[in-house]
Amino acid sequence: MQTLKLGIAGLGRAFSLMLPTFLADTRVKLVGACDPRETARAQFEADFDAPTFDDIEALARMPDIDAIYIASPHQFHAAHTRIAARHGRHVLVEKPMALSLAECDDMIAACREAGVHLIVGHCHSFDTPYLRTRELIASGAFGGVKMIQALNYTDYLFRPRRPEELKTEEGGGAVFSQAAHQVDVVRLLAGSRATRIRAAVGNWDASRPTEGAYAATLWFDNGAFATLSYSGYAHFDSDEWTGWIGEMGQAKHADGYGAARRKLALVQSRDEEARLKAAGTYGGAAYTSPSRSQPEPRLHQHFGPLIVSCERGDLRPLPDGVIVYGDERCERIALDAPRVPRSEVIDELIAAVHGDIAPLHDGVWARGTLEICLAMLRSSAEQRDVLIGA
Amino acid sequence: MQTLKLGIAGLGRAFSLMLPTFLADTRVKLVGACDPRETARAQFEADFDAPTFDDIEALARMPDIDAIYIASPHQFHAAHTRIAARHGRHVLVEKPMALSLAECDDMIAACREAGVHLIVGHCHSFDTPYLRTRELIASGAFGGVKMIQALNYTDYLFRPRRPEELKTEEGGGAVFSQAAHQVDVVRLLAGSRATRIRAAVGNWDASRPTEGAYAATLWFDNGAFATLSYSGYAHFDSDEWTGWIGEMGQAKHADGYGAARRKLALVQSRDEEARLKAAGTYGGAAYTSPSRSQPEPRLHQHFGPLIVSCERGDLRPLPDGVIVYGDERCERIALDAPRVPRSEVIDELIAAVHGDIAPLHDGVWARGTLEICLAMLRSSAEQRDVLIGA
Ligand SMILES: NC(=O)c1ccc[n+]([C@@H]2O[C@H](COP(=O)([O-])OP(=O)(O)OC[C@H]3O[C@@H](n4cnc5c(N)ncnc54)[C@H](O)[C@@H]3O)[C@@H](O)[C@H]2O)c1
Ligand SMILES: NC(=O)c1ccc[n+]([C@@H]2O[C@H](COP(=O)([O-])OP(=O)(O)OC[C@H]3O[C@@H](n4cnc5c(N)ncnc54)[C@H](O)[C@@H]3O)[C@@H](O)[C@H]2O)c1
Repeated sequence: MQTLKLGIAGLGRAFSLMLPTFLADTRVKLVGACDPRETARAQFEADFDAPTFDDIEALARMPDIDAIYIASPHQFHAAHTRIAARHGRHVLVEKPMALSLAECDDMIAACREAGVHLIVGHCHSFDTPYLRTRELIASGAFGGVKMIQALNYTDYLFRPRRPEELKTEEGGGAVFSQAAHQVDVVRLLAGSRATRIRAAVGNWDASRPTEGAYAATLWFDNGAFATLSYSGYAHFDSDEWTGWIGEMGQAKHADGYGAARRKLALVQSRDEEARLKAAGTYGGAAYTSPSRSQPEPRLHQHFGPLIVSCERGDLRPLPDGVIVYGDERCERIALDAPRVPRSEVIDELIAAVHGDIAPLHDGVWARGTLEICLAMLRSSAEQRDVLIGA
Repeated sequence: MQTLKLGIAGLGRAFSLMLPTFLADTRVKLVGACDPRETARAQFEADFDAPTFDDIEALARMPDIDAIYIASPHQFHAAHTRIAARHGRHVLVEKPMALSLAECDDMIAACREAGVHLIVGHCHSFDTPYLRTRELIASGAFGGVKMIQALNYTDYLFRPRRPEELKTEEGGGAVFSQAAHQVDVVRLLAGSRATRIRAAVGNWDASRPTEGAYAATLWFDNGAFATLSYSGYAHFDSDEWTGWIGEMGQAKHADGYGAARRKLALVQSRDEEARLKAAGTYGGAAYTSPSRSQPEPRLHQHFGPLIVSCERGDLRPLPDGVIVYGDERCERIALDAPRVPRSEVIDELIAAVHGDIAPLHDGVWARGTLEICLAMLRSSAEQRDVLIGA
């Protein structure tokens, strides 16, 4: 079994969401971490008996480390990737890859020069139901992809945030954080280069003045087009259309209606909100550690209802399988529940690190997704199509 | 009780779909009809003991008739409206209103000059759940409309058709026939003038070369935007998301999967297909008359899943009510099952004819919907936004 000695840069919410993976995937060994938050560092040291640092330089210099998972805020992704690469570490960096295409180019170049792999994720395009759908499409059994419908209604905007997460110019809002998933999934399934986009963004809560919603049409080189829509304003919950299975593969309970908005209403200031966010993540006062031994049963993760229409059938990835609506009949291809959540990320990372296998979710790929996200903002502002890759 | 003496021009599928209304609504008396199809005329005479004609002139000249329901193919709507108006008859004309804006202008002018009302319908924007949603929005309780999501996946393209229904230049395809409903519903709920549209149309069955699918973003003067998408290629069925209640308010059965496509596969030619369509409508060999006494229990009609996002809540019209997803809680406003299907159309028609009350779905309104449908085709062909009302 090939193991992976992983350092962590940023012990916040993204790390908390990957932690069940790191704990359950026996291939992964967490060997060090960095974070300016002392409580998080203390918890990491206690949990993993491994050193921590207050900045990434020291982590990257550790002698025995294969790769660094960069889960710091967006604005640090480029600098942290450069540092990791300079020390010869492979990089797994969270989505969105960065804030600008120039940063992406820089990250790609730094990793190329250092001869290390760059993977961007976790992103929901790693989820097995989408990858399985992609294989079904690639089999040719349904003809070409013609139209994709992807939608998602969540409580995104009402989760506690750091101040910059509510400022678009600093990478805040649903386009940077949520379209990063949806666009990536749709591109993966379209199987063709995106050529143009037309989008409208919604920013209609004056107390949280960034994009909470969007609608977009995305065109592809093969003639396919996709409708992407998103509301993070949390009223209707589209998980109703994925069998009440939530984004993390968990069973959802109707009694949680309005919970995020209610909790947030008690918060008095941006500072208090940032503290609330930190309190709920790794090392925070309100953080509950995932049990190593008894993980809750989970289905596959997802990013909202999605239908791919091909010439001879529609395909519908769901947390427990893919429904294939063919010309003659409809069948469900069952998928085993994941043993380890998000193990697809580790598969791709280990294959790259130890097998030198070029990852699907590499820097060039993820740059393409960021380009589309940036084009969404531009299209909405300038009220016109924006060409991609032009 | 005010009654309505109604003449019918066109005894085909649209008439068959309105017939349960005409039979159950005791305010309506069918006093005459015209259709070139002899079998349909014979059945009408037998059913209603009323005269029939092979053209609309003779029908319009009948002495005792309030209004004419024009349910002939699209291409006759303008000419038939002119004839009805010239004889002083109020007009209820099927959607789409006509094939061009010039025809619409002509129809509006003819009815104005004659002093008769012009109503365009049945259209699903008459359905009570949408009208009730509109009232909820108008109450102001949820703030302004910000985003609308409307989608529909049906077997539209595989129902038997007349040849012109498969030729876009003659008014065929999903944009003329189906967007006519969806755009109308969305406009009604947005409550603001549409200003621009960007659309993509899908035409991917070479044996039925017209639009079977589309995706569009529609912007409104109040800043709201809407996502409209449609596939008539019948694989996934979005009635799953309206509680398995079909467009006509009927309970749907899963064993019908692929039925339309299977039936159509047996057809050898366009002529045979047109005969198959006629055979299934009023007076045809395969037509089964709706029982006068024992109508099947039905819920409200609809045109696919739809979510209206307002500043302080999402509203979701469904066949049996409206779900109100508010800031604090979610509740269902139950709607009684309709006693008479589509009675909303008769309400509006009688109010206009006898009360001189300006109808909601008048010619100017319906012209606006056709303008948007034509703009969808143009936007897709020219790959750019098309301004509305410019
Ligand atoms: N894939 C997913 O499901 C997912 C979920 C959440 C967040 N994310 C991504 O993860 C990234 C972090 O977001 P988050 O929600 O976890 O934020 P967060 O605030 O919860 O966590 C960020 C962590 O980074 C630490 N940090 C700040 N500056 C640092 C530095 N210079 N060096 C090292 N650590 C530093 C913070 O103290 C904090 O612990 C974002 O890019 C976000 O888009 C991805
Ligand atoms: N609102 C709805 O739910 C709905 C449903 C179906 C059709 N429609 C609309 O109704 C119209 C008719 O479509 P359809 O599907 O019923 O077609 P159809 O072919 O089933 O019916 C048309 C009928 O008009 C007759 N006709 C042809 N020329 C005529 C003429 N010159 N004068 C009088 N009658 C004539 C035909 O013989 C036929 O009986 C279309 O505009 C369509 O968009 C609306």
